[in-house]
Amino acid sequence: MLVDGLQCGTFNRTVFEELRAGGVSCVTNTIGFWDTPEEALQAIADWYALEREHGDLIQIATTTADIAAAEAAGRTAVLLGSQNSSLLGDRLDFVEVFARLGLRVMQLTYNIQNTLGGSCYEQPDSGLSRFGRNVVAEMNRCGVVVDLSHVGERTSLDAIEASEHPVAVTHSFPREFVEHPRNKSRELLDALAARGGVIGLSVYPNITGEWSQTLEKWCELVARIAERIGVEHVAIGSDLGRFIGEQDLVWMRQGRWSREQEYGAGSPQFPGVVDDPEWCNTAAQLSSIADGLGRAGFSGDEVGEICGGNWLRVYRQVIDRLPQAIG
Amino acid sequence: MLVDGLQCGTFNRTVFEELRAGGVSCVTNTIGFWDTPEEALQAIADWYALEREHGDLIQIATTTADIAAAEAAGRTAVLLGSQNSSLLGDRLDFVEVFARLGLRVMQLTYNIQNTLGGSCYEQPDSGLSRFGRNVVAEMNRCGVVVDLSHVGERTSLDAIEASEHPVAVTHSFPREFVEHPRNKSRELLDALAARGGVIGLSVYPNITGEWSQTLEKWCELVARIAERIGVEHVAIGSDLGRFIGEQDLVWMRQGRWSREQEYGAGSPQFPGVVDDPEWCNTAAQLSSIADGLGRAGFSGDEVGEICGGNWLRVYRQVIDRLPQAIG
Repeated sequence: MLVDGLQCGTFNRTVFEELRAGGVSCVTNTIGFWDTPEEALQAIADWYALEREHGDLIQIATTTADIAAAEAAGRTAVLLGSQNSSLLGDRLDFVEVFARLGLRVMQLTYNIQNTLGGSCYEQPDSGLSRFGRNVVAEMNRCGVVVDLSHVGERTSLDAIEASEHPVAVTHSFPREFVEHPRNKSRELLDALAARGGVIGLSVYPNITGEWSQTLEKWCELVARIAERIGVEHVAIGSDLGRFIGEQDLVWMRQGRWSREQEYGAGSPQFPGVVDDPEWCNTAAQLSSIADGLGRAGFSGDEVGEICGGNWLRVYRQVIDRLPQAIG
Repeated sequence: MLVDGLQCGTFNRTVFEELRAGGVSCVTNTIGFWDTPEEALQAIADWYALEREHGDLIQIATTTADIAAAEAAGRTAVLLGSQNSSLLGDRLDFVEVFARLGLRVMQLTYNIQNTLGGSCYEQPDSGLSRFGRNVVAEMNRCGVVVDLSHVGERTSLDAIEASEHPVAVTHSFPREFVEHPRNKSRELLDALAARGGVIGLSVYPNITGEWSQTLEKWCELVARIAERIGVEHVAIGSDLGRFIGEQDLVWMRQGRWSREQEYGAGSPQFPGVVDDPEWCNTAAQLSSIADGLGRAGFSGDEVGEICGGNWLRVYRQVIDRLPQAIG
């Protein structure tokens, strides 16, 4: 059982085949970054269509029972995730609406401050707003995982405290090892772990630096962070994004909020699309991680936790709330 | 078991108590008339909130099993219905999106021509458009009842023919008895019946005239129309609308499409809110219909069909498609 906490990019049959080849049991996708409510409905409808067309390879999952059923049937379970909360249109009630349509993971902010709180790319960080607190509570009620990957430090700490259920950093890296605004401080990871949360470790070169250059190095990092915060709080969140071109990057980084070049996790030195590491540039290669972790000294049980068990624990605590049970 | 094919107006605890007092097992509501997709999401979310607050009296139903469960629990089942297709935002995919959120009845047009077809208030009637045909097929697939009450004659005939499943005229009256553009011709009712459809007969004075003045007269009308098209195609569709004020009428009749006074089913002679008949001005009085039909000569079985069985037959044929089964 291998669970990847986040992937983005274009999803098509090639990617679904790669997910199967990599033995990926469950992946959280990215339905969008800057969607209005109406655009998000269309994005979700497009995923229903993908499921209809590629039902031999994937299955949209809304519960851990769905994930298990997909695994048993040899399909990859897809959790619908949004990397932003713009799809709410600032309406608290839309958390439930999108949850009923299958949304199971939502990042509070993407790269800019919004009505919920601050992003990792701006100072000062307002902290979790009053609306943000209401949204976190509503996500708890409706079975949507709170994702803090691109969220600012203070807002993240507030959200960890405000959330009744464990929260997730689906795709990031520890700042102790790579200094980058997208990465998470020791204080934040301690708070995350103290409340039962999990961080998915990325392979995205812009935020992982030398640590993702080889499988061995990446697994060494996993071992070092697991030692600090506990193996039960560490997981995979590759942030793989297939078929992302320069125009996609412009959309992801500038959305409709900037006409100037924005670098996102990149920089003037690395402004464009960067190649994912050779050992892990498609989901088909994710299967190598288990062996790598074994060689880095993890026991079989620990490898199982990191590769899937930890995410499943969070999902069991958060998402197993069927629409019928809402209310 | 009493099923009312359509009600509108404001729904609140008073109305829910009236529904219970009237022994109404199931009612199709009106979530809106001119909603954009985003507005419709909010309207549905508002109904989730109503269900949470008044769960002792009502239950949103998406299947006939839900209707039976509500009946057994002493609650009124509510089918979510829209009197227009504006909520699709001209996106075919949104039929499934709204079906998954619980929408079970949708009128193709309200009072004006739209992208699907023509309304009963305009000549010429374009007939069912290409998009309209796609929407009807998608409604069939997704378990949404096609409602033709305000739809134009030619478009209605096209829709009856295009639909794989029986269609509904949820709230109207036979034009043979009251000449009004909202009412349905003999040809249309014959076509509806030939494909297994059902007409819900209204008590709304503007379209029922003298026939709704007393329970006896209304039941006589039911008997006469049942004789013509078959008792299995006749049902109740009261069109009761509680707490409708003049401003509500302006919104219903003019929406955002006209700044001039529009009369809808009214007229310069009766431009405003008209009182529903004394024998049936709230849902609490609907329970008197069964006895009235008995006195008009219907057998117990026939009364059961008219008061609920016919609608349930259509619902079984159309709506029992769980979201999970879509695709």
